[in-house]
Amino acid sequence: MGNELLIGKTLDTNAHWLAKRITVLGLKVRRMTTVGDDLDEISSALKEALGRKPKFIILTGGLGPTFDDKTIEGIAKALDSPLKINEEARRMIEEKYEQYIREGKIREYELTPYRIKMAKMPEIAEPMPNPVGTAPGVKITLNETTIIALPGVPEEMKAIFDEYIANLIRKAAGDVTFFEAAMLSTGIVESEVAPIIDEVMKNNPYVYIKSHPKAAEKVPKIEIHVYTTAEKADVAKSRLSNVVIQLSELIESKGGKTTPIKRSD
Amino acid sequence: MGNELLIGKTLDTNAHWLAKRITVLGLKVRRMTTVGDDLDEISSALKEALGRKPKFIILTGGLGPTFDDKTIEGIAKALDSPLKINEEARRMIEEKYEQYIREGKIREYELTPYRIKMAKMPEIAEPMPNPVGTAPGVKITLNETTIIALPGVPEEMKAIFDEYIANLIRKAAGDVTFFEAAMLSTGIVESEVAPIIDEVMKNNPYVYIKSHPKAAEKVPKIEIHVYTTAEKADVAKSRLSNVVIQLSELIESKGGKTTPIKRSD
Repeated sequence: MGNELLIGKTLDTNAHWLAKRITVLGLKVRRMTTVGDDLDEISSALKEALGRKPKFIILTGGLGPTFDDKTIEGIAKALDSPLKINEEARRMIEEKYEQYIREGKIREYELTPYRIKMAKMPEIAEPMPNPVGTAPGVKITLNETTIIALPGVPEEMKAIFDEYIANLIRKAAGDVTFFEAAMLSTGIVESEVAPIIDEVMKNNPYVYIKSHPKAAEKVPKIEIHVYTTAEKADVAKSRLSNVVIQLSELIESKGGKTTPIKRSD
Repeated sequence: MGNELLIGKTLDTNAHWLAKRITVLGLKVRRMTTVGDDLDEISSALKEALGRKPKFIILTGGLGPTFDDKTIEGIAKALDSPLKINEEARRMIEEKYEQYIREGKIREYELTPYRIKMAKMPEIAEPMPNPVGTAPGVKITLNETTIIALPGVPEEMKAIFDEYIANLIRKAAGDVTFFEAAMLSTGIVESEVAPIIDEVMKNNPYVYIKSHPKAAEKVPKIEIHVYTTAEKADVAKSRLSNVVIQLSELIESKGGKTTPIKRSD
């Protein structure tokens, strides 16, 4: 969330990090939306998202003290639930400023309206301590959906996610985990690889295969990724290795070559 | 668009590049949405976007020959306009394969259903030649909105945008251009900078100011960006320099320091 994303100043690494973490925790990310620091845009995007009834909606950015930090106000508007000072959040913020005094980072502090703003949230919201910065995260548990608002500063976002959210996501996902294999196909063009992928995917219903041309199609070099989600690692691994063998044989029968790709992360 | 974005495999540099280009061409990007390779998700996201009546909707990715390239089908579904083979697009694709034969990249070619797929589009669509790859871009001019579909391979997306779209955007923007200045504030925390930004923005209605804490707030280092859009460069520049002076004076009066930031691009 934020104008800096919409003017192409900042690359949205927060969405990327969250998508990867959530996928590996076993849930499926269905949509990512970026809006600016605009109350109506935030609340209408949130209402649309609530209408799709996801288990989680995670918002990042816009929790700070400045006028253009409008995320919580946008949530309040979408839920039609007025902002009130949350006493627990106010305490978290006071503790932070007292810590900054002890650390010599500030000399004194006052709970100005700008600072109090970070403690205002809808009545049903729960604040989550920010281990790295000042603004608390916010969690709102509705019937079908949990709304989570995290700061936009990446270290703060990641710290609150790992401490308070990762567990919720894993629990919601059940005992399912995500597995992946990758290979490189060279020597045949993507439109020749396409029917091969089709055939292998038809024969392997629990596996998803995606091709990524590594340059324009004129240089025939295609990364192929194979995904599955399973409760047991050995089931997933044997599914993936079967699919890799089938793909390799078919690609080689068309004159292509395949090599496995080692995962870097 | 694409599952690789939703699983956090690929960082969405296409959206970032487009946002920057469109902003500098003078239009405002209001929303960016990422969905997976799913027909219903694509068509429902497109319908929602059409409901907001923007001048342009730009889709990237999903134009290739494989089964999971579903963008054009998603557009057809949203517009309730069936897919037909576009003869101009078919010719563009044939010319590409003939070029690949001349360049020795393939030995022969056949217009398989996978290749013909790249020529199928709603009847009112116009194909745009792809200078770098095979799949043509697609442009659909409706009453209020122009829908543009570009390939997901960055070089192809950029080439078609620069050749066929940039001019349309500049024309739609009129004689308006976007200007920006940036400064670094050190020594005071964001919640002390916030009221300063508020005051300066109130005194300068055509200027937008945004603060970006460079680390958690405990390290008081804040980048401040000042934006304006204007028809004349000298008007914009004097607006920005006035605002930078006002901000610097107020920040320094609170014990902070400011330094200008040179733009790297």
